[in-house]
Amino acid sequence: MYSNVRIVMMNTSHPGNIGAVARAMKNMGLTDLWLVSPKSFPDIVAERRASGAKDILANATVVDTFDDAINSCVTVIGASARGRKIPWPVMNPRDCAEKVREIAKSSSDNKTVAIVFGQEDRGLTNNELQRCNYHVHIPTNPEYSSLNVAMALQVVAYELRMDYLLYSGLGNIDETTSTLSSKDDGWDEEAATINDVEGLVQHLEEVMTNVDFFDPDNPRQLIPRLRRLYQRSSMDKIEVNIIRGFLTAITKAISK
Amino acid sequence: MYSNVRIVMMNTSHPGNIGAVARAMKNMGLTDLWLVSPKSFPDIVAERRASGAKDILANATVVDTFDDAINSCVTVIGASARGRKIPWPVMNPRDCAEKVREIAKSSSDNKTVAIVFGQEDRGLTNNELQRCNYHVHIPTNPEYSSLNVAMALQVVAYELRMDYLLYSGLGNIDETTSTLSSKDDGWDEEAATINDVEGLVQHLEEVMTNVDFFDPDNPRQLIPRLRRLYQRSSMDKIEVNIIRGFLTAITKAISK
Repeated sequence: MYSNVRIVMMNTSHPGNIGAVARAMKNMGLTDLWLVSPKSFPDIVAERRASGAKDILANATVVDTFDDAINSCVTVIGASARGRKIPWPVMNPRDCAEKVREIAKSSSDNKTVAIVFGQEDRGLTNNELQRCNYHVHIPTNPEYSSLNVAMALQVVAYELRMDYLLYSGLGNIDETTSTLSSKDDGWDEEAATINDVEGLVQHLEEVMTNVDFFDPDNPRQLIPRLRRLYQRSSMDKIEVNIIRGFLTAITKAISK
Repeated sequence: MYSNVRIVMMNTSHPGNIGAVARAMKNMGLTDLWLVSPKSFPDIVAERRASGAKDILANATVVDTFDDAINSCVTVIGASARGRKIPWPVMNPRDCAEKVREIAKSSSDNKTVAIVFGQEDRGLTNNELQRCNYHVHIPTNPEYSSLNVAMALQVVAYELRMDYLLYSGLGNIDETTSTLSSKDDGWDEEAATINDVEGLVQHLEEVMTNVDFFDPDNPRQLIPRLRRLYQRSSMDKIEVNIIRGFLTAITKAISK
């Protein structure tokens, strides 16, 4: 994951939130946490909530001011609600991730991006927000938009990771691949061909006829329905073989 | 947001997680929470963590078994890590949101989708996972993949909301629109035209010449650099006017 992303938490009141942020960061592959004048740090509550991410806390940098946390960065992105007086350049978390990727892939040595989260009760101040190049806004329910700070970090970090895995060419794309059936990468068995499935349908028809379940003189829609079912299921070869094996066993059983 | 999405939490140990899930649900516009044999519910810890989302807790449905929670649903999606023995149809959270949208837009009355989250320490059991139509997998850091259950819900619910706002045609698209400059929807002032910016550059050149900052006989790259700066900034008309007003004031001041 990006090593140039710095997560900055401003004046955090509840150490539990620092721990939750550390855990979410590590889950998403981020490592660099800066704390600006936290109310209590280090704190056992933060460590407990960090669970297996205590290393993130141990390596966190504590500074006094917003300036200290962002001075060496090329870009500062502040988490923000909508509706500030002067509309600032604002991105949703997905576009924020794309922006971070663009900066990360530049060959410049100096490309640290700070993503800043405000104090729990009030968020970033107007002054802090105006020091940011961009704001990132999570599209919350307008009727209840107060997102917990660790939850906000989780969403932003998730988008960073998704974007990284999907587009960086460096990540393990398998982690984001949706595998819904044998047509998709990652399925355990080879996909059945059209011919395999048709063989199955004809085998079914034969055995269903033999057990007097299917009447060829009064076919109704039985076979088309079965064909439709199995054709849309993106069957794999093992599944076809299992059912055909069953059909063969039925045939053997009735011929005894 | 979707009213047909049911969030199911299995055997939750820590009431704080139930509260955090309620808050995250309401933030993302979800309302229907089902709890299967929670260790402690109702619980003051859950209520405290739910913050402004106590109504979600008050309306939660508590049942005894997994079956009770999913029986009336058409589709069940289980939150899962990778690497089960039989690969089940698995989606990332973005594709999961698309799947939910497809089901929600059908005209069927019966289209409740359950999204199920396992017990904190062990996740969903193999037995529960095999009762799901699909699994949803969040692409975590393989070196530290144990995501807090409320964080996992937050990510899945965020993707549901993003997808809903972007694609349902019902949501407020503004909530997801990235507004980076005057070229984008939502900026407060009209975009400057090419002509406006060129007028500014010429005005700058004129005043810079008048104050002997710019030497037309030795122009170097000064003007191209200014033109490049202002042209790439997607200026709005007010910004152009502010700088030109300043230039005019300078001219007046030096002519006195």
